[in-house]
Amino acid sequence: MADAALDLVLRNARVATASDTFACDIGVRAGRIALLGEGLPAGTREIDVAGRTVTPGGVDAHCHLDQPMEGPAKMADDFLTGTRSAACGGTTTVIPFAAQMKGQSLEAAVLDYHGRAEGKASVDYAFHLIVSDPTPQVLTKELPALIGQGYTSFKVYMTYDDLKLDDGQILDVLEVARTHGALAMIHAENADCIEWLTRRLEAAGRTAPRWHAHARPMLVEREATHRAIALSELVDVPILIVHVSGREAIEQIRWARAHGLSVFAETCPQYLFLTAEDLGIDDSYQGARCVCSPPPRDKANQEIIWDGLGDGLFTVFSSDHAPFRFDDPQGKKIGGEEVAFRHIPNGIPGLETRLPLLYSEGVLGGRITLQKFVELTATNPAKAYGLHPRKGTIAVGSDADLVVWDERALTVDNGKLHHAVDYTPYEGMPLKAWPGLTLLRGDVVWDGRNFTGHPGRGRFLPCGTPSLLPRRP
Amino acid sequence: MADAALDLVLRNARVATASDTFACDIGVRAGRIALLGEGLPAGTREIDVAGRTVTPGGVDAHCHLDQPMEGPAKMADDFLTGTRSAACGGTTTVIPFAAQMKGQSLEAAVLDYHGRAEGKASVDYAFHLIVSDPTPQVLTKELPALIGQGYTSFKVYMTYDDLKLDDGQILDVLEVARTHGALAMIHAENADCIEWLTRRLEAAGRTAPRWHAHARPMLVEREATHRAIALSELVDVPILIVHVSGREAIEQIRWARAHGLSVFAETCPQYLFLTAEDLGIDDSYQGARCVCSPPPRDKANQEIIWDGLGDGLFTVFSSDHAPFRFDDPQGKKIGGEEVAFRHIPNGIPGLETRLPLLYSEGVLGGRITLQKFVELTATNPAKAYGLHPRKGTIAVGSDADLVVWDERALTVDNGKLHHAVDYTPYEGMPLKAWPGLTLLRGDVVWDGRNFTGHPGRGRFLPCGTPSLLPRRP
Amino acid sequence: MADAALDLVLRNARVATASDTFACDIGVRAGRIALLGEGLPAGTREIDVAGRTVTPGGVDAHCHLDQPMEGPAKMADDFLTGTRSAACGGTTTVIPFAAQMKGQSLEAAVLDYHGRAEGKASVDYAFHLIVSDPTPQVLTKELPALIGQGYTSFKVYMTYDDLKLDDGQILDVLEVARTHGALAMIHAENADCIEWLTRRLEAAGRTAPRWHAHARPMLVEREATHRAIALSELVDVPILIVHVSGREAIEQIRWARAHGLSVFAETCPQYLFLTAEDLGIDDSYQGARCVCSPPPRDKANQEIIWDGLGDGLFTVFSSDHAPFRFDDPQGKKIGGEEVAFRHIPNGIPGLETRLPLLYSEGVLGGRITLQKFVELTATNPAKAYGLHPRKGTIAVGSDADLVVWDERALTVDNGKLHHAVDYTPYEGMPLKAWPGLTLLRGDVVWDGRNFTGHPGRGRFLPCGTPSLLPRRP
Amino acid sequence: MADAALDLVLRNARVATASDTFACDIGVRAGRIALLGEGLPAGTREIDVAGRTVTPGGVDAHCHLDQPMEGPAKMADDFLTGTRSAACGGTTTVIPFAAQMKGQSLEAAVLDYHGRAEGKASVDYAFHLIVSDPTPQVLTKELPALIGQGYTSFKVYMTYDDLKLDDGQILDVLEVARTHGALAMIHAENADCIEWLTRRLEAAGRTAPRWHAHARPMLVEREATHRAIALSELVDVPILIVHVSGREAIEQIRWARAHGLSVFAETCPQYLFLTAEDLGIDDSYQGARCVCSPPPRDKANQEIIWDGLGDGLFTVFSSDHAPFRFDDPQGKKIGGEEVAFRHIPNGIPGLETRLPLLYSEGVLGGRITLQKFVELTATNPAKAYGLHPRKGTIAVGSDADLVVWDERALTVDNGKLHHAVDYTPYEGMPLKAWPGLTLLRGDVVWDGRNFTGHPGRGRFLPCGTPSLLPRRP
Repeated sequence: MADAALDLVLRNARVATASDTFACDIGVRAGRIALLGEGLPAGTREIDVAGRTVTPGGVDAHCHLDQPMEGPAKMADDFLTGTRSAACGGTTTVIPFAAQMKGQSLEAAVLDYHGRAEGKASVDYAFHLIVSDPTPQVLTKELPALIGQGYTSFKVYMTYDDLKLDDGQILDVLEVARTHGALAMIHAENADCIEWLTRRLEAAGRTAPRWHAHARPMLVEREATHRAIALSELVDVPILIVHVSGREAIEQIRWARAHGLSVFAETCPQYLFLTAEDLGIDDSYQGARCVCSPPPRDKANQEIIWDGLGDGLFTVFSSDHAPFRFDDPQGKKIGGEEVAFRHIPNGIPGLETRLPLLYSEGVLGGRITLQKFVELTATNPAKAYGLHPRKGTIAVGSDADLVVWDERALTVDNGKLHHAVDYTPYEGMPLKAWPGLTLLRGDVVWDGRNFTGHPGRGRFLPCGTPSLLPRRP
Repeated sequence: MADAALDLVLRNARVATASDTFACDIGVRAGRIALLGEGLPAGTREIDVAGRTVTPGGVDAHCHLDQPMEGPAKMADDFLTGTRSAACGGTTTVIPFAAQMKGQSLEAAVLDYHGRAEGKASVDYAFHLIVSDPTPQVLTKELPALIGQGYTSFKVYMTYDDLKLDDGQILDVLEVARTHGALAMIHAENADCIEWLTRRLEAAGRTAPRWHAHARPMLVEREATHRAIALSELVDVPILIVHVSGREAIEQIRWARAHGLSVFAETCPQYLFLTAEDLGIDDSYQGARCVCSPPPRDKANQEIIWDGLGDGLFTVFSSDHAPFRFDDPQGKKIGGEEVAFRHIPNGIPGLETRLPLLYSEGVLGGRITLQKFVELTATNPAKAYGLHPRKGTIAVGSDADLVVWDERALTVDNGKLHHAVDYTPYEGMPLKAWPGLTLLRGDVVWDGRNFTGHPGRGRFLPCGTPSLLPRRP
Repeated sequence: MADAALDLVLRNARVATASDTFACDIGVRAGRIALLGEGLPAGTREIDVAGRTVTPGGVDAHCHLDQPMEGPAKMADDFLTGTRSAACGGTTTVIPFAAQMKGQSLEAAVLDYHGRAEGKASVDYAFHLIVSDPTPQVLTKELPALIGQGYTSFKVYMTYDDLKLDDGQILDVLEVARTHGALAMIHAENADCIEWLTRRLEAAGRTAPRWHAHARPMLVEREATHRAIALSELVDVPILIVHVSGREAIEQIRWARAHGLSVFAETCPQYLFLTAEDLGIDDSYQGARCVCSPPPRDKANQEIIWDGLGDGLFTVFSSDHAPFRFDDPQGKKIGGEEVAFRHIPNGIPGLETRLPLLYSEGVLGGRITLQKFVELTATNPAKAYGLHPRKGTIAVGSDADLVVWDERALTVDNGKLHHAVDYTPYEGMPLKAWPGLTLLRGDVVWDGRNFTGHPGRGRFLPCGTPSLLPRRP
Repeated sequence: MADAALDLVLRNARVATASDTFACDIGVRAGRIALLGEGLPAGTREIDVAGRTVTPGGVDAHCHLDQPMEGPAKMADDFLTGTRSAACGGTTTVIPFAAQMKGQSLEAAVLDYHGRAEGKASVDYAFHLIVSDPTPQVLTKELPALIGQGYTSFKVYMTYDDLKLDDGQILDVLEVARTHGALAMIHAENADCIEWLTRRLEAAGRTAPRWHAHARPMLVEREATHRAIALSELVDVPILIVHVSGREAIEQIRWARAHGLSVFAETCPQYLFLTAEDLGIDDSYQGARCVCSPPPRDKANQEIIWDGLGDGLFTVFSSDHAPFRFDDPQGKKIGGEEVAFRHIPNGIPGLETRLPLLYSEGVLGGRITLQKFVELTATNPAKAYGLHPRKGTIAVGSDADLVVWDERALTVDNGKLHHAVDYTPYEGMPLKAWPGLTLLRGDVVWDGRNFTGHPGRGRFLPCGTPSLLPRRP
């Protein structure tokens, strides 16, 4: 068994990968999985998991932490609280966004963002880039250089005034992705339609949070999805459509697949567990908590999202964690309770609850297989963004990022969560499981009761080439 | 490392599962994988594979061996030659068909078929049932009993006079599948259309082998596919459509998926590598070699099949090995070279070439990932028919069924194949790899040059419940 | 103005054709329209319609009158009462069915049916054939001969034990249609599925009328529609799918059209105005009145049928009048109120209400244009079955079959209808119009209050070639 | 027969409307059709057409005449030559475009355009508006006022720098259409994609005319078509997509229809008779003649356009006449033969050949019925733009705009056309018919050999509400 002893042996695991479930011990050496097998020799540390299910540490490929904002709004979670929250919910890798402000260089954005992570992160992290100002300098110099340095994915917005690109700019960015082997994520909503509807709603005095959903009906997402697909088809490059919310967008993606296009898709817990009614059925401001884009739809669309998780339509399941406190003038109450919905910071927290929600309702609720759970929450995000096989699976040589599941009845309670947000949209929801242990590279960072990680121990992960697709010879 | 030493250590493997690729040694004890890891202790036997790719032994879930036939035609391969051929091509599990003759009991068919396998099989095997006479006795007694005994899948024919069921009978059989958790495979072609076209072709003197393809145009398959989907929807039970040949059938399956139906699909090498022209472009009888149903289509459909393999449309890749000698009055020349195409025994050999063809053109040709190859050829067939995780993967506790790949240029040559058929439809086709080693439960059954297995060492595998879908709570 | 005076001038008409609406006088000579224009010279008779809308006399291309039945059931309407009822509802041409019994010759069926019509019909009539026994004699001799004699359409059943053809027989019949330029109408429901469901419902004691709808869910119709389309595609001949009931069948027809196939479709009032709830929401036998096949669906499907009427999906709007008395042992109570639904004679009356229902809710309700109304109820049925331009329009040379509309509020009341059935499924339904006058070849056969026609004055119409499609050069 | 004698009787006509074909005489009084019938009394003038087919005068709803341009290019046809050419090709109503320049008021554009038409037009005319600068003044004042004055349709461009609107502006314009009952025509191509491709082609030195087609592939049209549909769905207003070129755009329109949306579509002769190869297969400048947008596609798309004409997909068949001389520095040679394709004025002439091409290949070639020809070329354009029943049909009360067809073999020869363009893209194409007579309000304006109309006799037609859809009660 080579010279070095095992640092840790996890005994009697029921290991789940995206392909298989099998019983074995897991031997860890130097933070990596060195052995999988029956009757491993003793390790320096030993943990007996007594047959409990062990899945790869979650990879949350869509979350926002300490992201600089235009205006007075401020994200509640920085890398300190955000990664702590991640660890306690079973996520050991996060990929937040280094966002370029218009006029700023991408390199400056990346540099700034490293500063925000260092010394604070308690799980590993990589960065997506947000390209909001694709100048020639950015397209020909900065992006190629950054891709070479391990920033191999970037997000493109089709909406939000401070971020959105026009179709020509999107084509430029997609061409860089194609040339340099990066992956573009697309936020697909038609900005003009939203603005047009918003003005009409405002003119009619319909400004309460619930009208946010009316300003962004499904066709606004469907149109942009079709357009994004067309742009990617023109450039001949894969894309990943983020936070798909329901049927009409899905139909476009199915159409693309049936025509041989490489269009990947992501969805999020809010599209499985919330509906537009959570934004309010009257003019109460309480619904501001659930203002996010695209908005949650209805029960019928929830079922369609579940179908899409099960049948391969979705590649990735992420939180889109965008943390704003509710009772906070830098958060959801940025303009007070009288503010029109267009001014409410968009986004909901979800880093910590992502895995327990899907494990409970998806796996234990009989909607998806355990393999599909692993694939959606860990393996595929790691592959999509070039972190596999280091991250996202339980295999010899991979980082020993592990979640041991306690299957027991509990209830979502924001008081027990570890983010810095003063609410969770899932408050009171019944769960059937929660991580009993989270290990990051062999270290226990969540012991089922307490966060046991260490700020600063999280490492930056340079990303390689996305590996969802075969490599052309 | 427990008490017992390892019987075998495969050193320096590049292991591929349906999820991951990783470098490690593989430790085998008592025919099962006991350890995966770095620097394993010495085994009784040692094989250094020097970094070569190791995939799970293939599971060929659609092949015909020594199947009793109506009339004088006779399959060339029995379990002796068929499983030998399988082993030499990297396949360690076969699932041929115990076929009920009309009037026969299913139990008798199974008993008879065990007799044909015993003492001859050199790889492991399970049985599908073919239900051709769904009497009340069969539906209420025999099928449920056989499912309980490990025969958990059955095939339903919508064509062939001696085998086909009408829609009402199919519904009856699907209901049994639903009640008892079995999986029905459907051969979807419209029998009446084929007969109608065949008569017209015959009346016009169009009887050469190439007219076989004209008697079974794509719409004949599309119609039956739509009908099979409707029947499964009515009963609310998953089905698997076998040997899908092209676009029109695929569109029906995509439609079903998009409507939330559990419709699985299989394709075969002939739909990737042959076209209708291989049945002849003139009236020569040579094309009888490639007469199979559905017939191969055209180049455009080949591309669509490739797309379907890559994007998840197909669950399983099988050979549909149906071995008839060409130059043989019990084979393709059953009626001499003047016989009308309707009398030519349907089917082509393919057990041995299935994996090398897909590995060469699919994986090394850059059309599918290595993971997808493993999934289609081993993991998914094992899951679909209740043999996973014992078969179909490389994981702790699984049978040590392994293929070590030699990547090198070669050419398909029937003289070097091990079946009892006097031709291969892929003669002369260039390949980029062939199994260098095949192991069955830790024993080398193919050493890259010679068959080293032992007739009778193959074991019968009782099948469990299909596990492609989540288990409802 | 030629020599002969006009027999009749209808003054101040607002004439509607399938293309136009225009104000003019209508001059009739010898039963045909001789002049359309402003300020016509005086006719022998004069009727001033004072600007009211005048449409072509309705052509009901799907109705059953005095059709011989297997078993004790008997149609309530013969040609006497049926055509009287037609006239009073604005229909001046009916095309009922000369139905071949199995074993009977088609010619005998036609001869018998002429006997039933002669001396009784008070509006003009043509015959469709029902082919239930396509023997070689029928296919090669009788059908071609009858087509030549003016029986240019025939109906094919995919369900009903005494009528249904298998797919091979349907292909044979379609080939005759193709060779001889006839049009096949298809009743598309999967017989085996219906039988299978019916047995299960019966086994569960679910035998009340409302279970009829559960025995024929939409997928049963969808499947058969897809199959019928495939068969017509194989033979390369247009077909017309009768009584389409909702979305799933429509989707198949749209698919066919988008692929360049000539698939025409018909719907009926029951799919616009009834739902499955009209068959009962409890086990009462009252719902037997509305037992017809396919069964009415739900409100959502009604809307989809309306969309299809407006957008060109439907070619023809017919009654499918199938008259059985409710309180009658030869009618709906054939087995008493305890009889299982499978024994209830299928069909509902509708000849007289067809036009008023569609005119009221369709035209005056703003759902379809007046032109579309004319097209669906008169022009297209006449074209589809080779009666145009003699029937189905208001044009110089056409028969002076005219309906003058009284637009006024009224209510459907079976007591005021003229069929021999003791109920109407539309009892109590509000209408916005009813024919104020019906003219057959210039004679008033309904004066708004009384039937003024004459049994025996209706003439048999030999049909020509269907003219919905261009004639290939 | 009233007091006044008939001014003209056209004897022995085979009259075709969108619904019917019938034999009769046509009596004309004061420019309108007063009588249709057999044996009309003598008129002041008499023309015996001896059984020839008579169709309504064509309505060309998409043509450009003397339209002010940015830059030095200049349209070759003004109202004088354009309407002369129309008359000689059987078109008696044209609807060219009063185009707003950015910064200009719509009213000024309309006033200017009236000045260009007056005294010159020899057939009747209405105006579409082109809205290129939808200021609040335009949206709230000018457009509503102009709609009220008979300008009830306007065109929106999604491409061309000087004309295109962004999505928000399109929504604004569509809302005006909805509120005031006007119809918006949409030129659907994605401007950004075209610009992006054009730059890349230019960078690669690909500037010859044929590259124009590569700069505007089908997906560019498909994307914009989907977007236009989404925008109309959002506003809940019908739209008409102009010059649809092939399959991908058609699929979007079928999708819209199947979802109950009122999306109308137009196509043009260039998509039936030209392909991209007509823009050149080498770098010759000759292909500049056929540079138009969208570009012609390929033979397969031509067939799909034919299918769409026959099956109701298309509502309108127009010329999109955009007349630029080839050998002219104000025409196609604006920059000399070395100019990059982006500078070539877009458009081809087609006013005069529109009807003969469709009549020859469509009606006489057996692809569409005579009724469909009338509907597409006259009745539907008149309905779509509120000119029916005054224009677009042969009915009592309609303008006596008539075309009498000479069916004979001839060849397209620009030397015999009457426009001011020095070429026709259809040069040398064989025809089977040409108008033998064209009558405008009873006056012969083309006698089969010579233009016999009079500049200035054409009248401006204020348009009413589009009448393709039912009027909601």
